Amino acid sequence: MKSFFLPSSIAVIGASDRDNSLGSQMITNLLYGYRGNLYPVNPNYKEIRGLPCFPSVDAIPGIVDLAIIIVPAPAVPDALEDCARKGVRRVMIQSAGFAEVGQAGAELQEKCSSTARAGGIRVWGPNCMGLVDIPRGHLFTFMHPKVYEDGLIPGRISIIVQSGMLSAGFLADLMSERSIGVGKACSIGNKSDVDECDVLEYLLDDDETDAVAMYLESIPRGRRFVELARTSTKPLVVLKGGKSGAGAKAALSHTSSLAGDARLQNSLLEGAGVTLAHDFQQMMELARDLSLISHTPPKCRTAIVTFSGGAGILSCDLLEEAGLRVAEFSEETKARLGKAFPDWLPAANPVDLFPAFALRGPLAAYRSAVDAVLADPGVDVVFMHYFAGLYRNFDGMREMKEAADRAGKILIMWVIGRREGTRIFREEARKNGIPVHCELSRAVECLAAAAGREQRTFSSVDSEPSVPPTAVDQASRILEAGVGTRIRDEYKSKKLLTCFDIPVVDEQTAETADEASSVAENMGYPLALKGLVPGMVHKTESGLVHLNIGSTEAFNEALAAIAERMGGKGRFLIQRYRAGDYELIAGFLRDAQFGPCVMFGIGGIFSELQQDVVFACAPLSVEEARLMIGRVRNVRLLRGFRGTVPLDEEEAARVLVALGDLGTLFPEIEQIDINPLVVKDGSPVAVDASVILGS
Amino acid sequence: MKSFFLPSSIAVIGASDRDNSLGSQMITNLLYGYRGNLYPVNPNYKEIRGLPCFPSVDAIPGIVDLAIIIVPAPAVPDALEDCARKGVRRVMIQSAGFAEVGQAGAELQEKCSSTARAGGIRVWGPNCMGLVDIPRGHLFTFMHPKVYEDGLIPGRISIIVQSGMLSAGFLADLMSERSIGVGKACSIGNKSDVDECDVLEYLLDDDETDAVAMYLESIPRGRRFVELARTSTKPLVVLKGGKSGAGAKAALSHTSSLAGDARLQNSLLEGAGVTLAHDFQQMMELARDLSLISHTPPKCRTAIVTFSGGAGILSCDLLEEAGLRVAEFSEETKARLGKAFPDWLPAANPVDLFPAFALRGPLAAYRSAVDAVLADPGVDVVFMHYFAGLYRNFDGMREMKEAADRAGKILIMWVIGRREGTRIFREEARKNGIPVHCELSRAVECLAAAAGREQRTFSSVDSEPSVPPTAVDQASRILEAGVGTRIRDEYKSKKLLTCFDIPVVDEQTAETADEASSVAENMGYPLALKGLVPGMVHKTESGLVHLNIGSTEAFNEALAAIAERMGGKGRFLIQRYRAGDYELIAGFLRDAQFGPCVMFGIGGIFSELQQDVVFACAPLSVEEARLMIGRVRNVRLLRGFRGTVPLDEEEAARVLVALGDLGTLFPEIEQIDINPLVVKDGSPVAVDASVILGS
Repeated sequence: MKSFFLPSSIAVIGASDRDNSLGSQMITNLLYGYRGNLYPVNPNYKEIRGLPCFPSVDAIPGIVDLAIIIVPAPAVPDALEDCARKGVRRVMIQSAGFAEVGQAGAELQEKCSSTARAGGIRVWGPNCMGLVDIPRGHLFTFMHPKVYEDGLIPGRISIIVQSGMLSAGFLADLMSERSIGVGKACSIGNKSDVDECDVLEYLLDDDETDAVAMYLESIPRGRRFVELARTSTKPLVVLKGGKSGAGAKAALSHTSSLAGDARLQNSLLEGAGVTLAHDFQQMMELARDLSLISHTPPKCRTAIVTFSGGAGILSCDLLEEAGLRVAEFSEETKARLGKAFPDWLPAANPVDLFPAFALRGPLAAYRSAVDAVLADPGVDVVFMHYFAGLYRNFDGMREMKEAADRAGKILIMWVIGRREGTRIFREEARKNGIPVHCELSRAVECLAAAAGREQRTFSSVDSEPSVPPTAVDQASRILEAGVGTRIRDEYKSKKLLTCFDIPVVDEQTAETADEASSVAENMGYPLALKGLVPGMVHKTESGLVHLNIGSTEAFNEALAAIAERMGGKGRFLIQRYRAGDYELIAGFLRDAQFGPCVMFGIGGIFSELQQDVVFACAPLSVEEARLMIGRVRNVRLLRGFRGTVPLDEEEAARVLVALGDLGTLFPEIEQIDINPLVVKDGSPVAVDASVILGS
Repeated sequence: MKSFFLPSSIAVIGASDRDNSLGSQMITNLLYGYRGNLYPVNPNYKEIRGLPCFPSVDAIPGIVDLAIIIVPAPAVPDALEDCARKGVRRVMIQSAGFAEVGQAGAELQEKCSSTARAGGIRVWGPNCMGLVDIPRGHLFTFMHPKVYEDGLIPGRISIIVQSGMLSAGFLADLMSERSIGVGKACSIGNKSDVDECDVLEYLLDDDETDAVAMYLESIPRGRRFVELARTSTKPLVVLKGGKSGAGAKAALSHTSSLAGDARLQNSLLEGAGVTLAHDFQQMMELARDLSLISHTPPKCRTAIVTFSGGAGILSCDLLEEAGLRVAEFSEETKARLGKAFPDWLPAANPVDLFPAFALRGPLAAYRSAVDAVLADPGVDVVFMHYFAGLYRNFDGMREMKEAADRAGKILIMWVIGRREGTRIFREEARKNGIPVHCELSRAVECLAAAAGREQRTFSSVDSEPSVPPTAVDQASRILEAGVGTRIRDEYKSKKLLTCFDIPVVDEQTAETADEASSVAENMGYPLALKGLVPGMVHKTESGLVHLNIGSTEAFNEALAAIAERMGGKGRFLIQRYRAGDYELIAGFLRDAQFGPCVMFGIGGIFSELQQDVVFACAPLSVEEARLMIGRVRNVRLLRGFRGTVPLDEEEAARVLVALGDLGTLFPEIEQIDINPLVVKDGSPVAVDASVILGS
């Protein structure tokens, strides 16, 4: 990657001197801050902006570390050939008109890829806006120079985006607002070769990058991405485009991206420590705040220092809604605050400073209030509200940040007010490394994201499952015994689960009705009776399932009904009936982008409405499985809701680990579903299950 | 209210000439645009800014239509006496230090109130920032003159806020950003007399107000507020502060407001057609967009015209997530769009215009694309994205809006880019009545709010229930029979419900165990058996409930167990056991602020986790009850989810109407709970119920 980011020389194929042409903008941008050798390539010019222009790359006398192509799409393969001849190993294709425009474009892109492969060339793009390194002033892009006319705001947040114009628009917006600085902005377009994993890997190692924000339309090497995320100590924020049907269709025509299953992706990314965003500006604010807030106590006991009682109240509401806490001040703090206030006003959290302005002036009031709450051991975070543009500029920002750092506490701000005043305030905040927001809810959202970002070390995605050899042998035998049957029946599926110690319901098969009756009498009621017929997958819909049978009479009725449906085929399954406190689901699947995954969620009709399901890459460690359980939205249900016995999470975690191990060790297993995994008095038991093998 | 908004003369009690004093700022503000007679009152001055200053109101020669008080709190009662002597009927107290600071302040406020009542004075405030009428330049407020130094932006959105500084901060912010104009901004503080209902009533009649945005910490006359909202044709947006525990505590000390039950309030407001907001800026954007978007097809089939493929994709995702639709273009539209594009680019929705910029220039590209999609009968909304500051200013805004209006379609915009460019773009949009946003998600959120705003007429909140007299008689007799018993037992509660035709489970009581057994044999299994013991409310927790009894043997066991728990007291209740497809809850209650209300929601353990419950003011019309059912979040469950029979919504609506009628007609009823209302094959039946009378 280094030659893309720090090339010693660049050739621009399609350089131009024509006003407003992309090739001309490219040269302008490169001349802005790039100090290596620059070689314009275009047979129509002898010279561009004082630089000698070459008819081909091949004609350049020196070494070309990176070639940037901006000629029309049909001319790109020849340009690549030219690069290969010259021995160029890194090419950035910024031209559009490839896989994103349909079949012909896809073929053209494939032609480029094979040319590149043959020449040992790594390709960035096509259909992208290249690379911008703001601290260095490297603008390897055709974007319009006006974008940075107001000045570049260097920072330590790097960006990876698939969209080109977006990255330009973004940069312009961010630079103008002056509250978020950017390090490297990487527009990767169709990703015919270099993809988000390659770039992310580079940025994770980059000393100049503290956080990475990504807008991605697909994550084809999903498993690798999860691996990188799991090992990252830097905050990663991902905004995934193409989550909806219409969005996915648009993504296909935008950067030729297959968007994939959004729910699975989101859950896997979240589980790998990635923070998910839903809009562009929000993504950047999340990345900035996460990079600035390095340590967060989980509840963020927050002191609110405000000029507006209403904003204070709303902040309380928003903090509590986000699961964070409004700090309780110590008596000492209240006494300290009291000194700054008129007598009639009680000191409390939120600290409404407005009445104190008249006594001491706004800046002194803010400084003493912030000092007082920073000293309170019950305060983790100070959320300061400011009304800019009424008083002179807020000049205590640096001291305040230093005091917060000394106290090991977080300072975050909200500002409204007059345009120029807020701009200055936000710029000051940026320079001092203080997150600043224009909406209360966004500030709280970012704080909650910081609090939710678990600082933990993961095992490698592809660690080896540790399973006793006897279990593996036993499972192998069961799988071999059924060779040729893709979908294993409920009974055989559960036998397989049993090898890996997954608890299953007490059950027995019977070949005949008589045998079934005698099994039932031995087992005792209540029972469930099912008919297992090869090839019939939807047992309930086919009338092959009777639950909660309470008596011999009822059993015989059920038996007759099921036998009729079976039409002489298959066998009976008699189970102890188990009415649980609630139902879970668990499973294993292989995803095209993310590989083997374990699924866990809340079952039953209501939760199906809510789709409360989480995923993680298999195999899992017990610790990872435990964290996975904690990620279901309705986790309260599992933790003793309404007087039920809390779920035995160790046991449930063991089930998830076992599912992951089974799927990982036996590549022939395509899918495992336990539905329901019934929980009674805290113990999970697989009541129905199916194992599907690869076809 | 008119004398508050349009007074012919104003006395300022506490006027001052001292720099930066509130009394001086008040005079500066009044001189800005108020053209009536202005009388400064302060015994220490003879003259302020060339106006004669009076030692007391009484000393003013002319009529005083409105007095504004800004003296310290302890001096306010005397000032009110002074006003009473003069015959002033409208007083605005902007001083702070009243009920918001505790007991002593509350007493002071009460003293003011009684003085005012005695003098026939209506009081606005105290602890407020008064009233601003921006189109008129009326600034009846002590806020700092710098707030409007950048100019006032008049508009047709009026604001009611309890918070003073907030309203000032807000105005400064809005004025600076220049994208939302404001009509009247009313800061009502502690609302000792004039409250949001009074002001709202005035604004609903005000020809210069198109929408009202409100930040409220309490709604003490909740029922009146609901009545106003139901009859309003103007969009109302409410941001309620003090929803959380910490927030409610802060609201009490801010404006002495009792915040009330947030869930109930939100649901009642939403049901009355109010749009709920969660943050300040968002509240204003909602109000602006709702005032500009007068008609909205429910699905908002949206055409996206963008400069960025990525923004287009994300817009699709956000629209679908919000339940709106990405429009499908007709072949004709595609052909029209195709002309604007390079050959290699297929025309689709989102319309990614970037490749067309080079061919025709950005403005022409936008105009022709917007014209093309406006002409498509499958398009309701055009969502235009713009990157400001790269090209010359966007000068086609007016024509575009006119074209949209001619087509009867909605135009909404998103802009990013360079600071000055976006400011100009947003100001242009405002002048042309086009909603413009800086975040895609906010634009979609506002569009969804417009689509969700039902244009319907409500009956009056306090309409008369129409119930047959025989039903009322029957219910009266049941209530009289139990005089002295506050909590009616399950059986008697359901008897009461039956009078109003609410379907209840088939059941019978028995005084003895023998009688219970014979009832059971007659009824047939499965059954439920319960013990009814006077004063024992929590039957399940007390072991007095056995469900799903399948046989005589099981019944006898249950009977013995329950009899033991009953200890010789009470009687047995034998019910036909009814395992439903799912459970609902329904009820009636009286709220201190909103009066009699009906409650409806989804029951069972999972939905209790989700708290999926809605409320409406009783009595209800059938139509209102139907709408109420449609408001539960998981309404899909009721409409044939996973092959269940859809809920008989007519029957369920009838149950809700009956609950409302019962509670309305019998003021002694404090609460009714039906839990569960079991639904089997679409039919709801009350399985357990309790009626609680007022103590």
